[in-house]
Amino acid sequence: MSVLIDRIGELVTNDPELGEGPLGIVRNAALVLDGDRVAWVGPAGRAPAADERYDADGRAVLPGFVDSHAHLVFAGERAEEFAARMSGRPYSAGGIRTTVAATRAATDDELRAGLRRLVDEMARQGTTTVECKSGYGLTVADEERAVRLAAEIADEVTFLGAHVVPPEYAGDPDAYVRLVTGEMLAACAPHARWIDVFCERGAFDADQTRAVLAAGVRAGLVPRVHAGQLGPGPGVALAVEFGAASADHCTFLTDADVAALAGSETVATLLPGVEFSTRQPYPDARRLIDAGVTVALATDCNPGSCYTSSMPLCIALAVREMRMTPAEAVRAATAGGARALRRTDVGRLGTGARADVQVLDAASHLHLAYRPGVPLVTAVWKSGRRVEGGRAG
Amino acid sequence: MSVLIDRIGELVTNDPELGEGPLGIVRNAALVLDGDRVAWVGPAGRAPAADERYDADGRAVLPGFVDSHAHLVFAGERAEEFAARMSGRPYSAGGIRTTVAATRAATDDELRAGLRRLVDEMARQGTTTVECKSGYGLTVADEERAVRLAAEIADEVTFLGAHVVPPEYAGDPDAYVRLVTGEMLAACAPHARWIDVFCERGAFDADQTRAVLAAGVRAGLVPRVHAGQLGPGPGVALAVEFGAASADHCTFLTDADVAALAGSETVATLLPGVEFSTRQPYPDARRLIDAGVTVALATDCNPGSCYTSSMPLCIALAVREMRMTPAEAVRAATAGGARALRRTDVGRLGTGARADVQVLDAASHLHLAYRPGVPLVTAVWKSGRRVEGGRAG
Ligand SMILES: [Zn+2]
Ligand SMILES: [Zn+2]
Repeated sequence: MSVLIDRIGELVTNDPELGEGPLGIVRNAALVLDGDRVAWVGPAGRAPAADERYDADGRAVLPGFVDSHAHLVFAGERAEEFAARMSGRPYSAGGIRTTVAATRAATDDELRAGLRRLVDEMARQGTTTVECKSGYGLTVADEERAVRLAAEIADEVTFLGAHVVPPEYAGDPDAYVRLVTGEMLAACAPHARWIDVFCERGAFDADQTRAVLAAGVRAGLVPRVHAGQLGPGPGVALAVEFGAASADHCTFLTDADVAALAGSETVATLLPGVEFSTRQPYPDARRLIDAGVTVALATDCNPGSCYTSSMPLCIALAVREMRMTPAEAVRAATAGGARALRRTDVGRLGTGARADVQVLDAASHLHLAYRPGVPLVTAVWKSGRRVEGGRAG
Repeated sequence: MSVLIDRIGELVTNDPELGEGPLGIVRNAALVLDGDRVAWVGPAGRAPAADERYDADGRAVLPGFVDSHAHLVFAGERAEEFAARMSGRPYSAGGIRTTVAATRAATDDELRAGLRRLVDEMARQGTTTVECKSGYGLTVADEERAVRLAAEIADEVTFLGAHVVPPEYAGDPDAYVRLVTGEMLAACAPHARWIDVFCERGAFDADQTRAVLAAGVRAGLVPRVHAGQLGPGPGVALAVEFGAASADHCTFLTDADVAALAGSETVATLLPGVEFSTRQPYPDARRLIDAGVTVALATDCNPGSCYTSSMPLCIALAVREMRMTPAEAVRAATAGGARALRRTDVGRLGTGARADVQVLDAASHLHLAYRPGVPLVTAVWKSGRRVEGGRAG
């Protein structure tokens, strides 16, 4: 099954050898998808024949977004807690503990349905590669279940047993770290590619983070780290030391952190939806980019600190609040996410890439920031298959 | 043709006599639309029979949004100017003059198609009442054309010949005011309900604003005023003096302005998409609400300072940036907009109201702020007719 996407006004390839600028933009282009791959990229009107033809009618076409940071295996929601936080009202319920309790109590099918709903919602908004973390189970069985279900539906699976110390271990966090690095890791590693830790005051300290990452590496997983969300800490340095694919949040960074990232292969993944939804200051993307750090944008979609699934909103926030140019933001949401997941088949549109394509109801990628909040994504292919339920064109 | 919307989890009526709180929330409700009106509101499972049944399956149902401030009759766009502004790069092209030139050069059908596209885009996002201003023609013929085309498609039409002094009159702004209040007003008044002025340093001063509003009133139009967008000025005081339905922007207000609004029937219409897209400070909604002023939220959708058409984004920004509660923001985007347009048939859901209804893919109105950027609007009826092209549920 092949599809010709013809009469593309602006094609973002993310390949500077294919087109102009860092986005590798080709104008008046066409694209042929064959099965789950891009088979041909070239000028409009010159493409080889295909089984189907989609007329882009001058619109912009981009690689699907790569959302490299999301927490999607959970039950329940926390809208009332959000409303209380934003209104400055006290709220006595249990924050993340509420989600942990609801997740443990849910059936496999309930968790699967919630995960499927969010991944589908993301796909309608142009996101074709999704990373998904565990971290609301926090027992051996519940974490194993989370990564197993994530592996059924998400593209990339991360074991995040070290999300928070669960209530049962409040008196002995080190015992919880031993569980995470022992029996829990053994149960989860077969379903996951990545090991992650929430390295933050109140969550896991430097020694505990080190123990979790080292055990993950021994089990064949590749590190990524939640670092510098609420204050400066050892997370970024540890991420670089362990060769992590990504250090995520990076809201509070020392000069040494920025230098360490710049001298490494570790991507800084910025999650501006979190700062939007918690009314915290935004990370300083310019400082990172100007230092030569590769930046990714992701949603951090989760029911507590940020329940957006919208990569276009992250792009608009990156431009408004983090002084990224629209081109930098679009690249960070596609090629940047791919780099943060060490993927070379997604986040770009060239021959051989995965057939992950989105069409905007706009002439240019600039509209993702120029028209904030507007659902501009009008057609999406994920692995060559058209996503249902996109809006009418 | 009647429709039963059944099994509504949370129905926002905006009528405190019908349900709890300022949003008049009724749980486990049903709604019957008959023709273009709401015929019945009551508990789920008790509704009279109807030609069709829509199962809301526990979702939230709200009145359609009332977008009481938009500039939709124009040609061209200014994405490059936006990108330059946000990146701090100089940009030499002509700002609003670019849009005026493109609009004058466009055919009626081109302007109609652009207007239709935006009104449809708004409807898919839950907006069922749209106000539309002229103001990019700035000649008698071009302004007359703008209000005439707006009257074909929008719900409310505003004559804004006093948007900016056009290049031809740069040397003699008062001569332009004489044109606006004379021949241009005479040509436009038959198509419009409202007279508006951009009262701001660099646009129209107090005397000019007074002349425009007085002439509009003599021609049978009702005033509304662009006031306090870029700095404090006489706009709000004049709006109140003339009994305007709304003073719009209200970003820069003196204590006297706030007191004048509080003692009047004039609504303060806040347009946070503008501050988002121009990186300006947001208006202080709390100060207005705490003083007893009625607040509306609107998009100001236009190709220059704010090209969003998304009322959900305005709600999310009002909560994040203007410290409105989610309930206040939802009310301002529905009942508030209706008040700013002096309409009693929209912005609420009770028997006899216009059949303007939206279903969210969420259990509560809170999700409009809790899930920023996510296209949650899953079904819309405008005057009882189902809007096509909403996303799949
Ligand atoms: Zn996270
Ligand atoms: Zn305006």
